[in-house]
Amino acid sequence: MSKYCFGVDLGGTTVKIGLFDTQGTVVEKWEISTRKENNGSHILPDIAKAILDKIAQKQIAREEVIGVGIGVPGPVDEQGIVHMAVNLGWGVININEVLGNLLQIPVKAGNDANVAALGEMWCGGGKGCSDMVLATLGTGVGGGIIVNGKMVTGATGSGGEIGHIHIVDGEPDVCGCGNHGCLEQYASATGVVRLANRALENSEQESVLRAAKANGRLSAKTVFDAVKEGDSLACEVAEQFGAYLGKGLAMIACVVNPEAIVLGGGVSKAGEILCQYVSKYYKTYVFHGCKEAQFRLATLGNDAGIYGAAKLVLE
Amino acid sequence: MSKYCFGVDLGGTTVKIGLFDTQGTVVEKWEISTRKENNGSHILPDIAKAILDKIAQKQIAREEVIGVGIGVPGPVDEQGIVHMAVNLGWGVININEVLGNLLQIPVKAGNDANVAALGEMWCGGGKGCSDMVLATLGTGVGGGIIVNGKMVTGATGSGGEIGHIHIVDGEPDVCGCGNHGCLEQYASATGVVRLANRALENSEQESVLRAAKANGRLSAKTVFDAVKEGDSLACEVAEQFGAYLGKGLAMIACVVNPEAIVLGGGVSKAGEILCQYVSKYYKTYVFHGCKEAQFRLATLGNDAGIYGAAKLVLE
Repeated sequence: MSKYCFGVDLGGTTVKIGLFDTQGTVVEKWEISTRKENNGSHILPDIAKAILDKIAQKQIAREEVIGVGIGVPGPVDEQGIVHMAVNLGWGVININEVLGNLLQIPVKAGNDANVAALGEMWCGGGKGCSDMVLATLGTGVGGGIIVNGKMVTGATGSGGEIGHIHIVDGEPDVCGCGNHGCLEQYASATGVVRLANRALENSEQESVLRAAKANGRLSAKTVFDAVKEGDSLACEVAEQFGAYLGKGLAMIACVVNPEAIVLGGGVSKAGEILCQYVSKYYKTYVFHGCKEAQFRLATLGNDAGIYGAAKLVLE
Repeated sequence: MSKYCFGVDLGGTTVKIGLFDTQGTVVEKWEISTRKENNGSHILPDIAKAILDKIAQKQIAREEVIGVGIGVPGPVDEQGIVHMAVNLGWGVININEVLGNLLQIPVKAGNDANVAALGEMWCGGGKGCSDMVLATLGTGVGGGIIVNGKMVTGATGSGGEIGHIHIVDGEPDVCGCGNHGCLEQYASATGVVRLANRALENSEQESVLRAAKANGRLSAKTVFDAVKEGDSLACEVAEQFGAYLGKGLAMIACVVNPEAIVLGGGVSKAGEILCQYVSKYYKTYVFHGCKEAQFRLATLGNDAGIYGAAKLVLE
């Protein structure tokens, strides 16, 4: 008898679903829309229908399905209870129970960023590691901590909220979370743009970033593209970015002493050069016992969530 | 048949040993000296003899002993291998194996600070919590992280090295680890004295700490005693201490989202007032999802190590 599991990545616009075997091979993956009307009350029934239809279509016996894992954009506790997923219009929902009842299959839910870390550990940049940190550098900075092969959920589902580590005193701008000086304000895609804007304001130096700014095309990508062309102002921005993120990751390493630190999200498309800027400062700030952590790039891209969700039910 | 376990806390001067039942009640506790001569080669045989003698004396059957846990002053990995416990003269030793062979009883070793955290979780200030941080404020700052009821050891045994989180840029003094600006430089007993000395140098303000300094009696205790008497310079020092430690603990909370933060070690003898100074700044810097962590005082004192070591083999 074959064994399967499903991994679901529930986003604000689409739901990605993957059917996996137990070795981490994707048998099939597809997407459905996230219907947010009526406080998101259609979302779980839609997911259940999509999975049950697929099981019927593939002529898979119900007992061949080990379970359904799901990553959710909000804090999820160990019991699978999500507390306020504002993007979806949800209040407090026990996903393991509600989706489990709809499917009559065991369900395990986790926070989407944490679940992505589990996916990268299973089949991506962190493969082979059981102690790992994923830093997802997108619009914000998300993260997931893996200790001994398992996700760190924390007491209230806020484990791995590394974007909100306080890294700078006296920051005038406010972070999305309400604090000032969070890692996310410097190490996200928008953070890199903030650093670039400040560098342009504080200098008369010639730089391709000036034209990019004038054209409204200043982005993390334009900054790192300029770095690769040797633009010295862009290199300064990359140093600042590396210093903030390297310092933040060094703090995290003193807590959980990871074997690998995996960089993912849009900013990580800059490639290996990113690891160089970050690891240089990481090594400066970190405790000597944690110096050997490897810096790697995430490899699963937008599929990390479905991989990690599937792995959730295989633990 | 009764069931027992032993908890061993291996220090540089003495070895504390406790005989426990499985509920965490100490049946008996005692100490032997740590014989460090010949690169510490007597230490494990001495411990084995002490335990085997106790088993014989108490007429306990070997099969009634679930195991022997031991906390060691150095990094210990998941396999029980200690890498350079310089205080003991040790190089690389697999304690689980060596002590296990001497005893013919299962042995599990861990780092002493991490093991103390497990003890405080089991029977001390963190009782009832499965996600907890212990900050031990002694000569240095040690720590232990508990996630889902288990110690965070990390990839190379450096999990929970929270004393070496980088907290201040531009610190001229060097930390014992070789870095500059580690949490330990401000939040340990010696760190509090450093802060007090700086405050005295930078101010003409009258303070009982001035006389204490002149008499060579400036200590963390004199500072917090002065705080309780309303000495305003001492209160400033306590605010600085609270800001550094509160900020450091806020960073840690964004990683592991603990239910409780337990303060132990000599500095914690200052009592509840310590929690007030620290939690005030913790709440300022921490991510909102982690704000509800409870601040508690450690209750097991020097026995935390034997409790935690015993718990190691009950997991």
